[in-house]
Amino acid sequence: MVEGKSDLRKCSSVEIKDWERVDQIGFGNLKLIQNPQEFCYGVDAVILADFAVNFCKKAPVTVADLGCGSGIIPLIISYRTEAAHIYGVEIQKEAWDKACRNAKLNNLEERLTFVNADVKNAEHGWGKDLTGKMDMVTCNPPYFRKGSGITNDSGPKAMARHETTAGLEDFLETAAVLLKRGGDMFMVHRPSRLADICFYARKAGLEPKTMRLVSPRADEAPNILLIHMVKGGGKELKVLPSWAVYDHQGRYTEDILKTYRS
Amino acid sequence: MVEGKSDLRKCSSVEIKDWERVDQIGFGNLKLIQNPQEFCYGVDAVILADFAVNFCKKAPVTVADLGCGSGIIPLIISYRTEAAHIYGVEIQKEAWDKACRNAKLNNLEERLTFVNADVKNAEHGWGKDLTGKMDMVTCNPPYFRKGSGITNDSGPKAMARHETTAGLEDFLETAAVLLKRGGDMFMVHRPSRLADICFYARKAGLEPKTMRLVSPRADEAPNILLIHMVKGGGKELKVLPSWAVYDHQGRYTEDILKTYRS
Repeated sequence: MVEGKSDLRKCSSVEIKDWERVDQIGFGNLKLIQNPQEFCYGVDAVILADFAVNFCKKAPVTVADLGCGSGIIPLIISYRTEAAHIYGVEIQKEAWDKACRNAKLNNLEERLTFVNADVKNAEHGWGKDLTGKMDMVTCNPPYFRKGSGITNDSGPKAMARHETTAGLEDFLETAAVLLKRGGDMFMVHRPSRLADICFYARKAGLEPKTMRLVSPRADEAPNILLIHMVKGGGKELKVLPSWAVYDHQGRYTEDILKTYRS
Repeated sequence: MVEGKSDLRKCSSVEIKDWERVDQIGFGNLKLIQNPQEFCYGVDAVILADFAVNFCKKAPVTVADLGCGSGIIPLIISYRTEAAHIYGVEIQKEAWDKACRNAKLNNLEERLTFVNADVKNAEHGWGKDLTGKMDMVTCNPPYFRKGSGITNDSGPKAMARHETTAGLEDFLETAAVLLKRGGDMFMVHRPSRLADICFYARKAGLEPKTMRLVSPRADEAPNILLIHMVKGGGKELKVLPSWAVYDHQGRYTEDILKTYRS
């Protein structure tokens, strides 16, 4: 839902730029500044946050979101959990700036900290004080492999969709570095990267434990993969029943509606 | 379908033991000797053979089936392809003996060769003349991990279900050794072993390329995984629409019936 920009602008001291919009995201009174010309969050982010909240082994106190964009996942997690410290890391300055303003807009600056940094090499840079301290890590990374698809475009939309500096292996390694032993990692990706995720996760010490495939409609091939890994977990993967996003009338299914409602 | 034992016995010079039965398996006139007290083939073997025939990149000439039991997969592949040389490897002497008699019973001794050997260490033993020569390898291995579940029972049924000498990693390594570069490997397993398969496959040089999950009924969690790997293949996994075995009236679905009919 998009509220009238002017009303939301009035009730906040946070700067909203002319080309931005402020959306009510459906979790309590949470609002999100986004730039519709660049990258707006989709169903992937919402179902990842829901998956993380539902499959985290215990209520998380410390959370990190890798490649957080405007901060949609940290915002939802702040609403759905009691987590005291939620960190978001984003390499793109404009997206990171929006995430900071989103924290302020929602009076969540005490719980939400956004870092403008590359996800890579966390333990030697931005993440050195966070190493081994996270209960939960979430990640909705760029879906396209380095060098695949349109790579000449270096705009924010392309950067959110294509691996640039950090690749899938870096995201998983950083998650493993930040997590406590036994901590939970949640990722949303394309099913085409499933073998990559299983391989690099285990290499990094994260064991795939739970996964769900999501297809546009029942009987169609899945185009979203939700996967839960545990740092130092045992070798046994539970594959959940698949979900569809839309029913045959083109409406969200009950499974998807629940993730927006919780 | 089970035909009257006596009729089938009469029309063949192959010894059928008192405790065995001879089934018509639904592919042309192919018959199969099984021991119902031990291990009878299930839907897994039939849908694996169908998956292999449908997703093999080109018509295979040389095929190996690892852990072939009584030879059900080699038999179906002999019917559905023109493969000239189909090898089956089986560690259990009784099952291997049945496989040999099944080849004879169906007049397929020229195309089917069964080896009584451990799948492990193929290149130094039974498989040394087959190294790098297979167009296709199929495998319906024991589903239970070494040391899991009932392990004291060393009978044929337990051996067919539990990893004993060779584990999942050995099956994948042997497949990689036997395949030509670019050759196709097809495996059926439990979805709980998916991360293991992706990890060990890539380690062995087999890249997961296509997979399908199969659940007992639609909306239920899958309990069968079909996975296709290619020796030296590129890193991109295609996840097919899931199948259900039964419809809500408890009848085989059309997807499953097709695999028995082709």
